Amino acid sequence: MQPVYLGLIGCGTVGTGVARLLIEQQQIIERRTGMPLVLKYVADLDRERDRGLTFPPGVFVDDALQIINDPQVDIVIEMIGGLTVAKELIRAAIAKGKHVVTANKALLATSGNELFRTAAAANVDLAYEASVGGCMPVIKSLREALVGNRIQAMVGILNGTCNYILSKITHEGLDFSSALAEAQAKGYAEADPTLDIEGLDAAHKLAILTGLAYGMQINFEDIYIEGISAITPLDIQYADNFGYRIKLLAISKNRGDAIEARVHPAMIPMDNILSNVSGSLNAITISGHAVQDLFLSGHGAGMMPTASAVISDVVDLARNLRYGAAGRVPLMSFQPDQIRNIPVMPVSEIVTHYYFRFAVQDRPGVLAAIAGILGDNGISIKSVQQKGRQTNAYVPIVMLTHKAKEAHVQNALQSIAALGVVGPAPVLIRIEDENQED
Amino acid sequence: MQPVYLGLIGCGTVGTGVARLLIEQQQIIERRTGMPLVLKYVADLDRERDRGLTFPPGVFVDDALQIINDPQVDIVIEMIGGLTVAKELIRAAIAKGKHVVTANKALLATSGNELFRTAAAANVDLAYEASVGGCMPVIKSLREALVGNRIQAMVGILNGTCNYILSKITHEGLDFSSALAEAQAKGYAEADPTLDIEGLDAAHKLAILTGLAYGMQINFEDIYIEGISAITPLDIQYADNFGYRIKLLAISKNRGDAIEARVHPAMIPMDNILSNVSGSLNAITISGHAVQDLFLSGHGAGMMPTASAVISDVVDLARNLRYGAAGRVPLMSFQPDQIRNIPVMPVSEIVTHYYFRFAVQDRPGVLAAIAGILGDNGISIKSVQQKGRQTNAYVPIVMLTHKAKEAHVQNALQSIAALGVVGPAPVLIRIEDENQED
Repeated sequence: MQPVYLGLIGCGTVGTGVARLLIEQQQIIERRTGMPLVLKYVADLDRERDRGLTFPPGVFVDDALQIINDPQVDIVIEMIGGLTVAKELIRAAIAKGKHVVTANKALLATSGNELFRTAAAANVDLAYEASVGGCMPVIKSLREALVGNRIQAMVGILNGTCNYILSKITHEGLDFSSALAEAQAKGYAEADPTLDIEGLDAAHKLAILTGLAYGMQINFEDIYIEGISAITPLDIQYADNFGYRIKLLAISKNRGDAIEARVHPAMIPMDNILSNVSGSLNAITISGHAVQDLFLSGHGAGMMPTASAVISDVVDLARNLRYGAAGRVPLMSFQPDQIRNIPVMPVSEIVTHYYFRFAVQDRPGVLAAIAGILGDNGISIKSVQQKGRQTNAYVPIVMLTHKAKEAHVQNALQSIAALGVVGPAPVLIRIEDENQED
Repeated sequence: MQPVYLGLIGCGTVGTGVARLLIEQQQIIERRTGMPLVLKYVADLDRERDRGLTFPPGVFVDDALQIINDPQVDIVIEMIGGLTVAKELIRAAIAKGKHVVTANKALLATSGNELFRTAAAANVDLAYEASVGGCMPVIKSLREALVGNRIQAMVGILNGTCNYILSKITHEGLDFSSALAEAQAKGYAEADPTLDIEGLDAAHKLAILTGLAYGMQINFEDIYIEGISAITPLDIQYADNFGYRIKLLAISKNRGDAIEARVHPAMIPMDNILSNVSGSLNAITISGHAVQDLFLSGHGAGMMPTASAVISDVVDLARNLRYGAAGRVPLMSFQPDQIRNIPVMPVSEIVTHYYFRFAVQDRPGVLAAIAGILGDNGISIKSVQQKGRQTNAYVPIVMLTHKAKEAHVQNALQSIAALGVVGPAPVLIRIEDENQED
């Protein structure tokens, strides 16, 4: 059978994994697909890096354009990351009629609408399974397995760095900066960890999934994003007392004419399977009207798990090539002309349960004043506990609320701060508890 | 675009769910696929059953052959179950060049090799996602998402009835027959529950997955099968003391030139995510050399979750039809000429950890005699506990072993029985504990 020619642009960690799978698993891939997949080129600026692989002469090139300009190359695998060069190369590859595989979530979250339109117009495939959740087939599940479902919600742990750090704080009582340092030492966090710990990486992924799930434009800039750097062992301990764990969740809910899409630390019940996803694993619960809850979990990052997802895409595209079936599954799950502009709800409009921790002056009437403000804002308290001892003239009070609207909660917190009896930095953590009706 | 014409044969529970999704979700399916899927026929012997659906005139027919003989029908959906009529109808549909979707695990486990060969020779697709794990895309994951992986192992909870019963015994202390009665009352178990509780249903599913994962013939008759009817609250309690839960596991391991494939109750550590899969849910961990562990969980049965998987297949086949791409993904994951005859290891050859419970006479030397026999058979004891009080002149003793070969274990148990100091029915439960090296 006709070989399929591949060009890999970017041979860093994941790119090396992709090359390794293509070389070392060539036989089993051909036994499955019936097609020889030939890695014709690998382009990277760093020729000297030890990748543990020997490429035949002529395969390793310095210039990515050599790949894009070779008419024999069928599929371009973009593994360089970043926004500018990667985008130019993908656009150039599409313009040459080549199918593209990428794992570039930041690029798709910010320029996906444009790139998918361009690819569809050129009748080429643009595949991106590895952009979300590493080895978990979450994109394939949304585009194919759940095709008969109206998607109702997705709740995911989509950033392994944050999950590793929160697991460390939870299970070993480390504070945030020690847990971060350990994550960095183990290679789970970058030297500049901002993209991960501030929730941006999870939000990139959520933006992609949200577009796919509901047949809408990708709307990264409308996602509410809050990271984990303010999470303390104290709040994790209090959460534990209430039967909750704290996870950085990426949450998307179908509210009919609008969508909730938000990334923030949240408390989830111990009996929610997501609460048991520890360390650097990723996981997601996808709720569809027919399946109810489908749960996936696996390594969301790392050389080989991510490379496995890239190979899955490469093989899908190779199979399409064989039958002239590009676009067989539309890139964004819905036909291009069926993608709608559905607004993302402002976070002020969401309704959920809340956990508050205040440091309050230990004197009569303070609790009554706080409770009064919450009541005036329509926020109903489910439980109040005074926890721990007085420090710096303040005593800590934690509260769980019934369902409340975020706008009312923010109003109330402002009024409570204005009372002058509450210490600095009140803590608000949202609760995702499907066991609680109201 | 050209419509795709579907004929549904069998409109019981799952068939009704399939019809419902095709009718009620017609619009969203067309927005995704770009193709109208037309349910041209529904055949069932029971015309009167209230399905909550209204079919247009001429759709409901009594004779399945009317569907198979209509040249306009592209895809036949077999939902009648059973081995004989279903097989004849599938063969007839293939002979007419129709693509087939089925959920019939018993049929595929016993006649799959033949049916897949017949379908491949006729260049038609035969899809079966709903045959294993209901809504979980486990077939799609093995055939597509993990295409770059050598599959190393699969450990699954593939029978919701057994999982429901074991969860009831575990969490509510019911005995087996009460838990079964409750499962029957709730519709989770059939009036004749044999197929489920004796492990046959899980073994059918494991047979299919094992063929798919390793590129080998389906070998149902070689799978070791043991059901859950002998599981007692006492053993579940002892398991809990050791940090284990008891689940009916379907286990398949790649041992190179042979395969382990077995279904039996097993103890698994509480920190294994499978131990937290409760009630009627299904779940599976697939281990591939690149992904490490991929975990899926969802409803493994029921009208709509199973129908969702059927629709996923129908859409895959409709997409293939559009491009003349039948066989785009080979039916058994590997190209037909690459399917090998890999033997299933006899259970006597497996090596794992064991739990024993003996009722022994409470007199000196008994434990030494038992330990001696185990030692003579090369079985090393990890812990021994005497649990509970003497009853009927016997005291219970439980033991955990280091890794041992099943043949040696069975030998030892025979010799121990021959001692004449051990009461009736010694209990053996295998342990799947990846935390224990030896």
